[in-house]
Amino acid sequence: MVRERIRLSSLHDRVMSAEQAAALIQDGMTVGMSGFTRAGDAKAVPLALINRGRTDPLHINLLTGASLGNDLDGMLADAGMLKRRLPFQADARLRAAINRGEVMFIDQHLSEMVEQLRSGALGHLDCAIIEATAITETGAIVPTTSVGNSASFAILADKVIVEINLAQPADLEGLHDIYIPKRRPAREPIGLTRASDRVGTPAILVDPAKIAAIVVTNQPDSATTLQPADADTAAISRHLITFLEQEVLAGRLPRHLPPLQAGIGAIANAVLAGLKDSPFTDLELYSEVLQDSAFDLFDAGKLAFASASSIVLTAPVMARVMPNIASYRDRIVLRPQEVSNHPEVVRRLGLIAINTAIECDIYGNVNSTHVNGTHMMNGIGGSGDFARNAQLSVFVTKSLAKDGRISSIVPMVTHVDHTEHDVDVIVTERGLADLRGLAPRERARVIMENCLHPSYCGQMADYVRRAVARGGQTPHVLEEAFSWHIRARETGSMLAETAPEALSA
Amino acid sequence: MVRERIRLSSLHDRVMSAEQAAALIQDGMTVGMSGFTRAGDAKAVPLALINRGRTDPLHINLLTGASLGNDLDGMLADAGMLKRRLPFQADARLRAAINRGEVMFIDQHLSEMVEQLRSGALGHLDCAIIEATAITETGAIVPTTSVGNSASFAILADKVIVEINLAQPADLEGLHDIYIPKRRPAREPIGLTRASDRVGTPAILVDPAKIAAIVVTNQPDSATTLQPADADTAAISRHLITFLEQEVLAGRLPRHLPPLQAGIGAIANAVLAGLKDSPFTDLELYSEVLQDSAFDLFDAGKLAFASASSIVLTAPVMARVMPNIASYRDRIVLRPQEVSNHPEVVRRLGLIAINTAIECDIYGNVNSTHVNGTHMMNGIGGSGDFARNAQLSVFVTKSLAKDGRISSIVPMVTHVDHTEHDVDVIVTERGLADLRGLAPRERARVIMENCLHPSYCGQMADYVRRAVARGGQTPHVLEEAFSWHIRARETGSMLAETAPEALSA
Repeated sequence: MVRERIRLSSLHDRVMSAEQAAALIQDGMTVGMSGFTRAGDAKAVPLALINRGRTDPLHINLLTGASLGNDLDGMLADAGMLKRRLPFQADARLRAAINRGEVMFIDQHLSEMVEQLRSGALGHLDCAIIEATAITETGAIVPTTSVGNSASFAILADKVIVEINLAQPADLEGLHDIYIPKRRPAREPIGLTRASDRVGTPAILVDPAKIAAIVVTNQPDSATTLQPADADTAAISRHLITFLEQEVLAGRLPRHLPPLQAGIGAIANAVLAGLKDSPFTDLELYSEVLQDSAFDLFDAGKLAFASASSIVLTAPVMARVMPNIASYRDRIVLRPQEVSNHPEVVRRLGLIAINTAIECDIYGNVNSTHVNGTHMMNGIGGSGDFARNAQLSVFVTKSLAKDGRISSIVPMVTHVDHTEHDVDVIVTERGLADLRGLAPRERARVIMENCLHPSYCGQMADYVRRAVARGGQTPHVLEEAFSWHIRARETGSMLAETAPEALSA
Repeated sequence: MVRERIRLSSLHDRVMSAEQAAALIQDGMTVGMSGFTRAGDAKAVPLALINRGRTDPLHINLLTGASLGNDLDGMLADAGMLKRRLPFQADARLRAAINRGEVMFIDQHLSEMVEQLRSGALGHLDCAIIEATAITETGAIVPTTSVGNSASFAILADKVIVEINLAQPADLEGLHDIYIPKRRPAREPIGLTRASDRVGTPAILVDPAKIAAIVVTNQPDSATTLQPADADTAAISRHLITFLEQEVLAGRLPRHLPPLQAGIGAIANAVLAGLKDSPFTDLELYSEVLQDSAFDLFDAGKLAFASASSIVLTAPVMARVMPNIASYRDRIVLRPQEVSNHPEVVRRLGLIAINTAIECDIYGNVNSTHVNGTHMMNGIGGSGDFARNAQLSVFVTKSLAKDGRISSIVPMVTHVDHTEHDVDVIVTERGLADLRGLAPRERARVIMENCLHPSYCGQMADYVRRAVARGGQTPHVLEEAFSWHIRARETGSMLAETAPEALSA
């Protein structure tokens, strides 16, 4: 079985233990690892590295596709081994270390980090650790459930460690399309004009001499968990689908919709899942991650094609899909995240981008990353890649958090990831605000009317009235712009103790 | 002479007075006008419209390329004729009306508005008013000193009014390259791989039957004025050029640099002009506007090619350049702003983008538009189009404004147009902060050390110290984040009365 997975026989003598392979990585090195939202991460070598780091001094700069699975980010953080982490993470313990200032976290657009790496602005890449389904007869590396930045890491690194994971279905081969833009000034247009186009090679082309070690593993991806859909996420989905139906009726969107992108997480998954019960058919995804909902839509006959950079599933859906991945092979393509999220392609295809906000303000600015403007959640991920260039940029959030003590609609967001220039539509369970073509004062009205929870209407109306009295394109009472957040820190709730109406009564 | 300029003779009977042409525009219409940063604006029909609006009820939604010249935006605002204005303006009286909430101003990325217009999200375009050098034998419209959104306006509007301006040199013909992306899903890659590539037609192709009126004018563009270079702008230019030289030495930039983009205004103009005395040669611009500096660089033998959407000059340079525009014709191309600013092309060419900030914060967020977070200056213009996708995104500003009472480097910007994810380098006259690959806490240090004016160092260090004590990826003292702005409003200065060192001494 291993020989079928390592088909270039001259590489067989590079097979070694994870510990031996990990010994190639020295203190201070910059390492690029496969892995994108838990999918396709290297599993054994990072663990061996962590074990070594518990006794030896070992600090690395870690670059990945996105977040890692198998608790790797958490263990690396606990071991104090991360000097620098890019471009995304989603682990509670790593997040805590980042917020304590112990790990330097550079939160970047997922399509963009590799450009900075390629230009030399992020220094030199010493080693790449890439999980693979197989190595071909010519030594090309076939990724597993994600492509992420694996191809560019393998191309740019001095040495490549490959983990051949026997637990990943051999049928993943053929799913990938590896296209890497040429170095400027020879760079050409990306010739992708439909979500289903293939423009690259089925595996990562790299000089086999660079493959310094091969480690054989046998461990599935760690499954994800998703909050189940609830009345609120169902309402968000319904509002958005109704809006899309109206846009089609008005002739502003095509009957089968443009390709859809949806961010990771429960709300975006629920929104997509809601399309099962919509009138839409022959849908396409051009997204960064395929979650459970993508396969639900496939199996419901609603989805014609899905392009992404990774597949991350809950345990039951993984058990259903992975053994039968061959049956989806002509309907799925996995690409480097540079291509799945590329501004050029996003703009050309005219995507509908659906991403999740931590908080939105009444003028249409969105915070996707920082709680209270200071503490990192996960990172911007691909939301900026998509929101800026999508035909329709949608942000979804429940109007309330923490049992109503936090409003997700605030006077001013405490951190801006998506500016008013990039946000077309905001949806909460209360309704949908279409911001296109509206000035800030008009946006405030439609967001308050459609998205804000009624328990915050009084205090928001009071804020806006006093802000507008001061004038400006984007009226604010600057000394109170964050008063809701400060109140929540002091009292546990953004709710004013006495509603302003009561005060003036 | 008029017959040479209107070469399709079947159109000769459409020639009429500006008042007759203006009569085609009715109250409530949406009108698209040529004009981009004063260049190539329609001159007679808007004036006739304003005169009519002084007596008749006449309110329009006005879309342009960017700002208009000839005081048109100011007069339209004074006449109370603007319901809605997109996507940019730079007039003091219009700005005041916007900030009073009288004109709904939608501040948009310059490359993006036409996408929303095309998709129907901005409603129906009733009429286009386009200044032209000539109408060709086939009825195609040759623009003048700007292309802006003129081509799409002419294509999308029900009726087109053309102003043939005899004061614009006939030699402008041949300067333009009109490429309009196809409607999706037929949209193709923009085949532009070098700044000098031509991918379109030399004139705007439109059904001559849509040309409802032709008005002959004879009035030059209004010249711009530029603050002269001073010691601070010279220092900014010097810091940036030194940095670019180091990047070339380090092998991170090519010897002749990637194509440059520079925003409009005195600082960006001075930075470009500084390249005259640099070692760089064979430079290229891929920008939205060519200012005086572009022609200074041409005439100094430094500039090989310049691509833009408009040419806006001071009076002396206009007098020097315009009579000889033919001699530049093989070194300049003017494109639709959708192409000059297109994310696809900006990313492919790997531009160095140089834009001006109103204020920057210590974490690398930039405010380009709103004074005190509320009052509109001009608009984001093309800065977002370029900063997001440039290879190197540079923001320049003097460290102080208002005789030192305002610091351009603040704890938190009051409005975010460019997020920390999109800002690579900040330059003031004090020095240059290279933010690439740095986490927010590290960025704060390099911005404070290199860009902040010393008179604000004490109070900033105090803020950061107390913010870091609270923790977080991006430390802030939320209740004091805008305290400098609030102090400036109350006392006229951001300077703390007593420096914190003195307090703790």
